[in-house]
Amino acid sequence: MRRNLRINGARLSSRLERLAEAGARPDGGVCRLALTEADKEGRDLVVGWMGELGLAVSIDAIGNVMGVRRGLEDGAPVMMGSHIDTVRTGGRYDGALGVLAGLEVVQSLEDAGVVTRRPLAVTFFTNEEGARFQPDMFGSLVFTGALPLEQALATVSVDGAVAGEELGRIGYAGQAPVGRPNVYAYVELHVEQGPTLEAEAYTIGAVEGVQGISWTELTLSGQSNHAGTTPMRMRHDAGYVAAEIAVFVRKLARELGGDQVATVGALALSPNLVNVVAERAVMTVDLRNTDNERLKEAERRLHAFVTEAAAAEGVTVETRPLARFDPVAFAAPLVARVEAIAREFELPVKRLPSGAGHDAQILAAVCPACMIFVPSAGGISHNVQEYTAPEHLAAGADVLLRLVTELAE
Amino acid sequence: MRRNLRINGARLSSRLERLAEAGARPDGGVCRLALTEADKEGRDLVVGWMGELGLAVSIDAIGNVMGVRRGLEDGAPVMMGSHIDTVRTGGRYDGALGVLAGLEVVQSLEDAGVVTRRPLAVTFFTNEEGARFQPDMFGSLVFTGALPLEQALATVSVDGAVAGEELGRIGYAGQAPVGRPNVYAYVELHVEQGPTLEAEAYTIGAVEGVQGISWTELTLSGQSNHAGTTPMRMRHDAGYVAAEIAVFVRKLARELGGDQVATVGALALSPNLVNVVAERAVMTVDLRNTDNERLKEAERRLHAFVTEAAAAEGVTVETRPLARFDPVAFAAPLVARVEAIAREFELPVKRLPSGAGHDAQILAAVCPACMIFVPSAGGISHNVQEYTAPEHLAAGADVLLRLVTELAE
Repeated sequence: MRRNLRINGARLSSRLERLAEAGARPDGGVCRLALTEADKEGRDLVVGWMGELGLAVSIDAIGNVMGVRRGLEDGAPVMMGSHIDTVRTGGRYDGALGVLAGLEVVQSLEDAGVVTRRPLAVTFFTNEEGARFQPDMFGSLVFTGALPLEQALATVSVDGAVAGEELGRIGYAGQAPVGRPNVYAYVELHVEQGPTLEAEAYTIGAVEGVQGISWTELTLSGQSNHAGTTPMRMRHDAGYVAAEIAVFVRKLARELGGDQVATVGALALSPNLVNVVAERAVMTVDLRNTDNERLKEAERRLHAFVTEAAAAEGVTVETRPLARFDPVAFAAPLVARVEAIAREFELPVKRLPSGAGHDAQILAAVCPACMIFVPSAGGISHNVQEYTAPEHLAAGADVLLRLVTELAE
Repeated sequence: MRRNLRINGARLSSRLERLAEAGARPDGGVCRLALTEADKEGRDLVVGWMGELGLAVSIDAIGNVMGVRRGLEDGAPVMMGSHIDTVRTGGRYDGALGVLAGLEVVQSLEDAGVVTRRPLAVTFFTNEEGARFQPDMFGSLVFTGALPLEQALATVSVDGAVAGEELGRIGYAGQAPVGRPNVYAYVELHVEQGPTLEAEAYTIGAVEGVQGISWTELTLSGQSNHAGTTPMRMRHDAGYVAAEIAVFVRKLARELGGDQVATVGALALSPNLVNVVAERAVMTVDLRNTDNERLKEAERRLHAFVTEAAAAEGVTVETRPLARFDPVAFAAPLVARVEAIAREFELPVKRLPSGAGHDAQILAAVCPACMIFVPSAGGISHNVQEYTAPEHLAAGADVLLRLVTELAE
């Protein structure tokens, strides 16, 4: 293994720029929704690059594309990857970085004349974002066998198109088998999409896992009353209870500490008039933690508070679970290697969780998996202003190169 | 004066039922928006009754209708009145009671052969509700000279009609002068529109005044962030500050005590998504108190809290005053007489403020004025389910009869 091997940052940035032209928005962002013409254009571009690099390209039945570089031995490849679909107002790095850094790793090895023992693979998974088809990440879910192929193919998009038909239309309904993955390890380089690395001046994030997510919708029903004529003690104010819950949710995050985050992002009152006590409030609570027991504790405390606050005001509450995912822990030895390699490269590194979902968490169910984060300027992502400095892109790809090379020995 | 004189409750209820047919809704409520066909139908009915009672009917330039019963002497009349327009989903009592109880008082005096020294007047004012034309109460405002006639006539309704044209269309653009009122005293019987009298088993409310109103719109601007990837300490959550303010507003009412009420009835977040920290929150705060100094204190404390909470979260705040009315105190001797008469009639009586606005507060600027409240079932008003028991209607009209007879001697 050549310990001084580095990727070519300029070449990586150049490919990122080129791919950003597929689905380019006038405002500098990218709209490359899954299985659209723009997605096809991006896919064709990446498949072309895979071909130029001599990779053996295969496409599976849900449109995941894998390019394999032969190793000295056959067997399960060490896989790099991510996705190239974007949200409607997407940036240039989310997803694309992990895929193009994979190509850059391969090209750097080619340039250096290095052939690894195990095969290497670069993969992009279909519909990671979920901006056009639900559920998100259905490409990696089908790939790992966590979601039936037929179900994913039958998915109808927000614009009325059927996923299976769209795959055929853009020419990416492939033949490679799904549901029986044969992967030695999976490493995904990605932009952080949060502010922590930049704010604390780290270049590399050694991602320990993906936070578990608990989404709940609460519907509070009280009594609509005149704001002038109804004494405070006679009110059943759904809006007040909603506000109490939102304040409690912040307190809950503070008390639980650690990685716990807690958010009331949606809240609507009715009739929503200045002089009428709110009869109804519909709100959401988003709780996330890397530790499932802590997450369950947060859910318990929230439930207890909601019950008590609603009862105190004479308001009824309906609770509807919107989503619940257990946390995913990445393979500890891989996380440790990311950290160690970054230190060796004298790159400031921080262990942190991922607050967003990624294909790596799906792959983690079938092989050792991990992620490498690089800073997002201002923590901004899913936004046309998404930006990561070229030196950070290159630093992340260097760590990816080293880790993958180690794993493939 | 005949101290045992009482009104005829059945006749009063019968007129209320008959008037409710003008603009009757299929659900049992009333939609008699100002200056509509339904309003014309209601007006014609009341004017017809005035004629049957021998009242001299005059209509002024903003459509206020006054029926005068001669007294033994000429001079300023003792006026009873209210309004007959309703909100879109109105009930049968709000406004109508004060007008029809006035007619019932006159008829009871007729039946008893009593002629008072001063003239009596029964008046209904145009557009009290403000459900079709803004500002509300423009009839009494023009009557007392507080609003220029031309401005009221030029008002454009929510449906695009011009008040002056509508007045002409329904035949109620009259000739009687406005702005130079000649009223000896004004007494308005009205349903409470709040829950206090019923909840505390009182039959009569001796209304001490109308609460001052302070309406403020707050726009909080923070930063939209990913609910999963943004650590709690890095948030600028406009929704959280809004919730803190809503909780504070309740605390403020509790701390100030007395008649103070405080309500956050409207609150909207954006982007209002489960997994996005709110960038913006727009909310209203409704503060009311009968004591202007206390109301100003509430405004000061609110402002201080908003400033502090916004700064602590790194959120900016824009404050827009929506409305500000000073409290109105009714004539103390009249309030005392309402209380005393109710006691004499062995009707449980409570002094209380009015949380809603009424024509009486406008009249209070030009003559001694007061109001008599009767209970609203469940405190419900501006609602098709508005209800006041017949014995309460009659009790209120009895107090009105006695007070007006006293004032007219």
